[in-house]
Amino acid sequence: MNAPFFDLTAFLKEHRDIVDRCLEKVLSSFDPERELVRAMRHSLMAGGKRLRPVLALASARACGKDIKLALPAACALEMIHTYSLIHDDLPAMDDDDLRRGKPTCHKKFCESTAILAGDALLTHAFYILSRPQDFFDLVPESDTLLELTAVIAMAAGINGMVEGQMLDMQSENHQENKRNKDSLLSHLKHMHELKTGKMIAASVAAGAVSVNAQVTLKTDLAAYAGHLGLAFQVMDDILNVEGDPEKMGKAAGSDLRRDKLTFPAILGLDRSKSFAQQLIDQALGAIDRFDSQADPLRAIARYVINRDR
Amino acid sequence: MNAPFFDLTAFLKEHRDIVDRCLEKVLSSFDPERELVRAMRHSLMAGGKRLRPVLALASARACGKDIKLALPAACALEMIHTYSLIHDDLPAMDDDDLRRGKPTCHKKFCESTAILAGDALLTHAFYILSRPQDFFDLVPESDTLLELTAVIAMAAGINGMVEGQMLDMQSENHQENKRNKDSLLSHLKHMHELKTGKMIAASVAAGAVSVNAQVTLKTDLAAYAGHLGLAFQVMDDILNVEGDPEKMGKAAGSDLRRDKLTFPAILGLDRSKSFAQQLIDQALGAIDRFDSQADPLRAIARYVINRDR
Repeated sequence: MNAPFFDLTAFLKEHRDIVDRCLEKVLSSFDPERELVRAMRHSLMAGGKRLRPVLALASARACGKDIKLALPAACALEMIHTYSLIHDDLPAMDDDDLRRGKPTCHKKFCESTAILAGDALLTHAFYILSRPQDFFDLVPESDTLLELTAVIAMAAGINGMVEGQMLDMQSENHQENKRNKDSLLSHLKHMHELKTGKMIAASVAAGAVSVNAQVTLKTDLAAYAGHLGLAFQVMDDILNVEGDPEKMGKAAGSDLRRDKLTFPAILGLDRSKSFAQQLIDQALGAIDRFDSQADPLRAIARYVINRDR
Repeated sequence: MNAPFFDLTAFLKEHRDIVDRCLEKVLSSFDPERELVRAMRHSLMAGGKRLRPVLALASARACGKDIKLALPAACALEMIHTYSLIHDDLPAMDDDDLRRGKPTCHKKFCESTAILAGDALLTHAFYILSRPQDFFDLVPESDTLLELTAVIAMAAGINGMVEGQMLDMQSENHQENKRNKDSLLSHLKHMHELKTGKMIAASVAAGAVSVNAQVTLKTDLAAYAGHLGLAFQVMDDILNVEGDPEKMGKAAGSDLRRDKLTFPAILGLDRSKSFAQQLIDQALGAIDRFDSQADPLRAIARYVINRDR
């Protein structure tokens, strides 16, 4: 399938800017001098890719609707993603000093402030979904807001991202166990489906839910998101092995040094790359019947395996 | 004002049991063998007083309505309260080994599991408010659920409980600073209003919101809750000085050893006790015009300053 030219760079920049302006508006309702607010800002405005909120907006557009309706969910998703990074970086978890080339929240501030900044971002994400009219001109109706809350909370919580991080912590230094390659691979896929996949899927779903899309569209988008989420994580593992530390904002090879369970460690680099390509082909196939309004989603899928950070 | 006899012990037990059964139902939807679920259960079912959910139920009753409508909010409040205890106990925060006579979550499990169990409880509280029909027979309407989410998220977050914990962390070992007694007292009141008061107030408000109570009732209940929340914290400080460690489930005098800012440290024990009594009198005055359906709220107010743990 040859897609017509689509300027993803311009699309990403335009939509990242829209999301950044909304997040600025959310933060601006708090005294900027407060330590808690400074810590939240440090991590929330650290120049992230905004992949999740942009996916929500692109998904709303693919359904042929006004992306503005998806902005409350987009902001909530990015705040929850940021909270998860702050907590994952803590000394008791991955113990990372750098994130996006800057000191992690607990390094720049302190451990207790980082824990609380994460808690505050998570809590405020749900506030935004309950009172979007405080921040946005166009807002979904009440039942839609409740559905968004349910979709996002389910993806972020006990059966989603939090459990994924639990499994990730438990899998460190466990490569030497007795499991065979197939079992390790299935464990790794499951862990990433929870840790990253569910929130990627929730982002795409949130765009469709925000605009009250038809069920058939939601189903296709869910299939797209499932493949995309896993491909994203496979590429993350590949970049951790061979990425440019300057562009990644963190040291390469850190997973290897920790003896962490990764796709390249199990499959090797080449087979990991072809696995990622196959997942992206499946993602593109799932949204085959969408019109050109879905071109941003198609371009994002291709970008995921061509990115360098 | 002489209240007729009201059996608070029986009321507390009955309503604690109702809340416990609902929380059991929430937990039972997850595989009990999972480490994350075990850690959540360890802290959520550790025999807490259930003050916040019981306040929500008592508040719904004071408005003359079916308390069942307040059960989703009651469960969400207890889950958020429990998450805050788990995170506050962490080594980077208050570094407590015991809570309610049992090992704290990070002592029983590990630090990363405790952080994630807290995150999971917080996230799932909002799931429950968005999908109460998964767990409860009688549920508030959509707009009411959004208002409950907003009230609770605001009380728990950046301008509420999380900021209160920030101020609490910042105030440790700072008694030697140059501020005079009045300034210290005002700082301490502000810190506790955020750390404890806002969630107590949200609990009372959530009961009234759940049953769509009239605005005048909500206003009176808010005044009641404001005084009650501060009185509760003053008594906590007093109990920390002279309480029985057996009943409290933790060592007495721990605040003193940490040179922590407390009401007894600033006012002395006797003036702290009369301050608590005065707050309770104000709380009772605020709900003077309620009928006997508010007797549980009145009895809870009296209990707060007569409790021994």
